[in-house]
Amino acid sequence: MPLVVAIGPSSFAAKDTTPLQMLTDAGIEVKGNPFGRRLTEAEIIQHLEGVDGLIAGLEPLNRKVIASAAPRLKAIARVGIGVANVDFDAAAEFGVKVSSTPDGPIAAVAEMTVAALLNIARGVEPMNAALHRGEWKKIIGFGLIDTRVLLIGYGRIGRRTGELLRAFGAELLIHDPYVDPASLTHGEKAVSLDEGLAEAEVISLHAAGEDCILGADAFAKMKDGVVLLNSARGGLVDEAALVDALNSGKVAATWFDALWQEPYTGPLTQYDQALLTPHVGTYTRQCRGGM
Amino acid sequence: MPLVVAIGPSSFAAKDTTPLQMLTDAGIEVKGNPFGRRLTEAEIIQHLEGVDGLIAGLEPLNRKVIASAAPRLKAIARVGIGVANVDFDAAAEFGVKVSSTPDGPIAAVAEMTVAALLNIARGVEPMNAALHRGEWKKIIGFGLIDTRVLLIGYGRIGRRTGELLRAFGAELLIHDPYVDPASLTHGEKAVSLDEGLAEAEVISLHAAGEDCILGADAFAKMKDGVVLLNSARGGLVDEAALVDALNSGKVAATWFDALWQEPYTGPLTQYDQALLTPHVGTYTRQCRGGM
Repeated sequence: MPLVVAIGPSSFAAKDTTPLQMLTDAGIEVKGNPFGRRLTEAEIIQHLEGVDGLIAGLEPLNRKVIASAAPRLKAIARVGIGVANVDFDAAAEFGVKVSSTPDGPIAAVAEMTVAALLNIARGVEPMNAALHRGEWKKIIGFGLIDTRVLLIGYGRIGRRTGELLRAFGAELLIHDPYVDPASLTHGEKAVSLDEGLAEAEVISLHAAGEDCILGADAFAKMKDGVVLLNSARGGLVDEAALVDALNSGKVAATWFDALWQEPYTGPLTQYDQALLTPHVGTYTRQCRGGM
Repeated sequence: MPLVVAIGPSSFAAKDTTPLQMLTDAGIEVKGNPFGRRLTEAEIIQHLEGVDGLIAGLEPLNRKVIASAAPRLKAIARVGIGVANVDFDAAAEFGVKVSSTPDGPIAAVAEMTVAALLNIARGVEPMNAALHRGEWKKIIGFGLIDTRVLLIGYGRIGRRTGELLRAFGAELLIHDPYVDPASLTHGEKAVSLDEGLAEAEVISLHAAGEDCILGADAFAKMKDGVVLLNSARGGLVDEAALVDALNSGKVAATWFDALWQEPYTGPLTQYDQALLTPHVGTYTRQCRGGM
């Protein structure tokens, strides 16, 4: 009897079938995601019937799901960096091994962050939309040279983002309580959160954890006309405080890839100053292939 | 009697009044562009009445204009890199000095080129538009790592663009008949135009001159699904051949900042695959300030 592997993420091998080919070449029977979207608890329970392994996305892999799939289910291989959707205690109890791919997303998320910043800095989206309507509307933007960027969180994605921004000549402020200032050897300046908020022209979130970092108090400390980038998690920012900051002009423009609810239909969709992407920081051919 | 300086470009000091302040602090009387757009021949002739110097944009500075402004007009200072709008023979004949600012635009144009490429590579514009319509539509794009980019023209803007692309991990092919392959010391590969067209996944134009480089023959030699970037001049590309290539899918996506006519209302405005910006490669606060 061949091994059966179920696929969780609807995007798995969507652009490049090499990963699927590797599985079938190894004699593995592949059970694709039949819904083309993230599975619910009931759906993943059904999807895991008669399955030996799961290539997992963000579907709920809680105790109930793992218990129902055991003892046949032996391994969960998460395609991506986050594993908050996996109940590790239940996995250990039922003998299910869990792996993830922390390296894959770094380059992709950092690139997406720079893509969003350049888009906002140069007004690409509004000028393109205007030209497609027949309007020739020039916007004077800002270059990244000498632009002061605060990176909140300087782990691997933050560091790669910083490396790219330095190539453009940006000046980096770093706030990360877990980073030794002596390790900042590329001209970055370690700052407290308050110092960083007061000095930055651009703020980019690359922090771990689930706690809200930027609430109304934090927005009040920022420069007028700041640009806020969030590729990490919606919950790091207070949504209502951000909306107030957009209304007042405190925040001139913002990019969110990680939102408070997904799919997101909230108030930011009403703001031209909000560049929004649907949690695709890791959506490159190279990154998905590597994972 | 104070010196009088007329301003040509409607964008001069629009975002940052420092340059104006510098002129007035020097006791110079400044005569702003009264139309808020590029002046016609008749308008610039009128604008130059009683003027000692011109801070010039792309308005026509032909023999008739220069003759009518002389002998009072003594200097034309072009804010930008191109001086094709200036009749140098007439300027020499009437004793008018001409200067330009070739360094200012380099960083700005290179950044804009990378901004456009990242935007196309990651599908930022269509995903943002979808989310603002309430649609959660994920696109798997491509990262720049290991992406093969052909730079046609490797002068200062091409080199700066290449430097930025290398920071993202792109592989560079260089076609520039004026560049000694021995001077390519950063892993770039010198190629003939035909080799480059056949191998590149992305092609970016940074060539000087006015001759068409990419006609129907050249498109036929490109990889299917190539991305074409043009920040240099519209005339380097045959517009009809490009439209055919978009229709056939030969060119998957394109960005044009320099167009065949400006303001541009031509066929590219009908293509979602065409990212269009209104000749704003140099439109950053830093660049316009520097110039």
